[in-house]
Amino acid sequence: MIQEVDINTDIGEGFGNYAMPNDEAIMPLVTSANIACGFHAGDPLVMNKTVALAKQHGVAVGAHPGLPDLMGFGRRVMELAPEEIKNYLIYQVGALKAFAEVQGLKLHHVKPHGAFFRSTKANEAQARAMVEAFLEIDPKLMLYCPGPPELYHPPLAKVVAEMGMRLIPEFYADLNYKPDGTMVSPGKGKRVELAPSEAAQRVLGFFKEGKVTTIDGTELSFEALSICVHSDSPQAVEYLKAMRDAFSEAGITIKTVEG
Amino acid sequence: MIQEVDINTDIGEGFGNYAMPNDEAIMPLVTSANIACGFHAGDPLVMNKTVALAKQHGVAVGAHPGLPDLMGFGRRVMELAPEEIKNYLIYQVGALKAFAEVQGLKLHHVKPHGAFFRSTKANEAQARAMVEAFLEIDPKLMLYCPGPPELYHPPLAKVVAEMGMRLIPEFYADLNYKPDGTMVSPGKGKRVELAPSEAAQRVLGFFKEGKVTTIDGTELSFEALSICVHSDSPQAVEYLKAMRDAFSEAGITIKTVEG
Amino acid sequence: MIQEVDINTDIGEGFGNYAMPNDEAIMPLVTSANIACGFHAGDPLVMNKTVALAKQHGVAVGAHPGLPDLMGFGRRVMELAPEEIKNYLIYQVGALKAFAEVQGLKLHHVKPHGAFFRSTKANEAQARAMVEAFLEIDPKLMLYCPGPPELYHPPLAKVVAEMGMRLIPEFYADLNYKPDGTMVSPGKGKRVELAPSEAAQRVLGFFKEGKVTTIDGTELSFEALSICVHSDSPQAVEYLKAMRDAFSEAGITIKTVEG
Amino acid sequence: MIQEVDINTDIGEGFGNYAMPNDEAIMPLVTSANIACGFHAGDPLVMNKTVALAKQHGVAVGAHPGLPDLMGFGRRVMELAPEEIKNYLIYQVGALKAFAEVQGLKLHHVKPHGAFFRSTKANEAQARAMVEAFLEIDPKLMLYCPGPPELYHPPLAKVVAEMGMRLIPEFYADLNYKPDGTMVSPGKGKRVELAPSEAAQRVLGFFKEGKVTTIDGTELSFEALSICVHSDSPQAVEYLKAMRDAFSEAGITIKTVEG
Repeated sequence: MIQEVDINTDIGEGFGNYAMPNDEAIMPLVTSANIACGFHAGDPLVMNKTVALAKQHGVAVGAHPGLPDLMGFGRRVMELAPEEIKNYLIYQVGALKAFAEVQGLKLHHVKPHGAFFRSTKANEAQARAMVEAFLEIDPKLMLYCPGPPELYHPPLAKVVAEMGMRLIPEFYADLNYKPDGTMVSPGKGKRVELAPSEAAQRVLGFFKEGKVTTIDGTELSFEALSICVHSDSPQAVEYLKAMRDAFSEAGITIKTVEG
Repeated sequence: MIQEVDINTDIGEGFGNYAMPNDEAIMPLVTSANIACGFHAGDPLVMNKTVALAKQHGVAVGAHPGLPDLMGFGRRVMELAPEEIKNYLIYQVGALKAFAEVQGLKLHHVKPHGAFFRSTKANEAQARAMVEAFLEIDPKLMLYCPGPPELYHPPLAKVVAEMGMRLIPEFYADLNYKPDGTMVSPGKGKRVELAPSEAAQRVLGFFKEGKVTTIDGTELSFEALSICVHSDSPQAVEYLKAMRDAFSEAGITIKTVEG
Repeated sequence: MIQEVDINTDIGEGFGNYAMPNDEAIMPLVTSANIACGFHAGDPLVMNKTVALAKQHGVAVGAHPGLPDLMGFGRRVMELAPEEIKNYLIYQVGALKAFAEVQGLKLHHVKPHGAFFRSTKANEAQARAMVEAFLEIDPKLMLYCPGPPELYHPPLAKVVAEMGMRLIPEFYADLNYKPDGTMVSPGKGKRVELAPSEAAQRVLGFFKEGKVTTIDGTELSFEALSICVHSDSPQAVEYLKAMRDAFSEAGITIKTVEG
Repeated sequence: MIQEVDINTDIGEGFGNYAMPNDEAIMPLVTSANIACGFHAGDPLVMNKTVALAKQHGVAVGAHPGLPDLMGFGRRVMELAPEEIKNYLIYQVGALKAFAEVQGLKLHHVKPHGAFFRSTKANEAQARAMVEAFLEIDPKLMLYCPGPPELYHPPLAKVVAEMGMRLIPEFYADLNYKPDGTMVSPGKGKRVELAPSEAAQRVLGFFKEGKVTTIDGTELSFEALSICVHSDSPQAVEYLKAMRDAFSEAGITIKTVEG
């Protein structure tokens, strides 16, 4: 079984007057932060503040670029051309990278927002546009992606392998899995609604067994290197605390993936 | 008299379906490009394309950040707090810098859009926020600013001197000067409406005499290192060609300011 | 054959500093104006000005609501829930209706922007949301829609019939038809690129024969009550003039559909 | 002393994924709702839902238009031309009016967001543009405005009197007054931070005495017909409950101003 695991969170998803009240409670409990970049959520002040919060807690800073759809929180699949995909990513990741560098940090990873992944599955050209954007910004950037990548996003898994980008497969602590390897979208169905200790055991069980039970009762097997908890999940703080306890008891170290 | 002079232009100010048809004709005629960053104009595709156009013609790439006001083309003064100013600049300059770096270029300079300058004159804290943003991104960035800086933007001139940022004062080929050292805004009055050869002589005259006649007939003296022509001025291409001819005849080399 | 026909145009599609230079030349040549409402194009000043221009030329005022995607000119299909569709339409049509009423005009019709039609084809609930929005604003509003509606948008044709909304099928003067009854999108392929007189004959021929030749050579038969010319088509003014001449010669009156 | 008084609130100020959790608790406690219209806050779904909530509780529906500055929650003064002011208001009020009418309600009043008032004080032309927009939409619309209007917004008070618009002066339950008749902006200083019962007595005292103590200890006298409580004030619900109790005890009826 694994000796160490990373915990990541999508965070910094406030905007203007709309604060995300849990961000300060969540940051100390994770090891990697996927920070919104202003398209689906986040704005320059929020980005700056969230990078500072990550720095304060020694959390690795990643970019969490989204679709240009603030009104829909970037959750609605859009028909995008490869050049749109590539340039929307360069813009957002570039902006977040500047906030990191101004604070003396290096950008550690990237993780597109859910519907951005789903909007780039139509063909390999779309997936290639994503990977090109990331590697051209920095060839050492890691790509966080829901596992199993070859089911979740087949063109991306193929292109990442070809182009040599490092992919960090994730397990989702707060989302339910479908048998096709995707998750039930938070905008479209139920999240995981277990008591924190049970949710923690579900995650620990996944890492012990290498498989998770999907919504139709079948099992889905894959490997993951990071656990994702959404910062806007109702029980995010409780899940994180329970998981940290459960992993600590199981002798597994919580730490970020080294670059 | 000067031996060489830079010509800069605010460019890449299209957005989405709205193209700026003169950008391709103008880029070969300038030596420094101030590229819009998506807040007042420009979008990721336009930014990428404009950086590529600058690269093709060996033009120095600068960021032209604006106020968050696409509907007003960033031309309406807004009441901004220092932290808003600083973070809006880091975001925009960071995004443009990424496009430059992805294409193998180094960001050469920054030049805020007109109303961004005007929105940061209320106090020194605003000016300091601007300069901090630029220097924290890259301490070697040059700041293009209408001359005479000490009249156009007194707090900025003071802060730039204190913090050691290199300032490149500009002369505006297509705007009329007021006696207070500011220019008549393109949104609020007449631009220079001379025949191209006369407009060129006006500019050349400024560099020979070190002064320009303002709209009330008085003279304004200052030094400039760069000439600005707006890419959306109706006669931009004609002005640029006429100026290049006039400066060539006068034995003055057109080249960018070295970093 | 028909005795009279309406000519409509998508117009008022500028935004902020970005003017659509042909709007003033086109308005006098059409009988119905589909005015952008601020989501894909248009802004309050442009809407006000375009309604005034329609009023000046006695052109019927319609709303042309789009997807919330200014950066993509509303041309990218988005995954939308029925309640999003309905409320986005009420908002936009309501705003345009206010501009019409302030100028003493009655809103005559509605016509969603192309990708809004394409984003509402997945199921009947989406189409129903559109029709409900329109009828709840005003049960007498006519719906302009590319013909043949039962091929172009089957769920909409069904719902319109059930709910008793008046549908005005259009023939597109500047777009090529596909055999499935849709048109080649201006963002994705070639528009009609004929000389104006030939383009006019293509339209007249359609009304004489009741059919048009599609891009694969097959014929598509349907009835239309209005002709659409996009105001941003490169030859819009020339097409309109040539069509008016051709219809006049053929003894067909150009006039709007009465409410 | 007054026999009846209206209580209004700025409400429906969520956006997309950002909900305002107190809206449902606040609506039953007020008699007039100023509903955000999408520029500074609010979106079509939120507007629809908030109008429905007002209808459910028999609350009068008003439009609360803001500056086009979502990132700043419309709180930053912007330099606006009269035609911008007028058309931004027609657009927003028209959209909200459509939501009201679709639900069978009549638009009762308008109340610009704070910085919209502050952005229209420079000259009478700006104030006239506001009043024209409202009266041209519906000559019976009432204008809610902080009292004393002749101090808070002198050009508006003058224009309203000239043009015959009905003005409803408000007293602010959660904002502190300055001696110049303006209030301390929620974005720039402290709100009223009293215990609910004391806050209620402060309001009741104002209506009994006709004056309020300002932040420098002087007294400001004026008449008001409505009390405003911001729906995002931390203690909004508690203030409202305490005020209703206090007014009930004092024999004053809480009801909206009749149109």
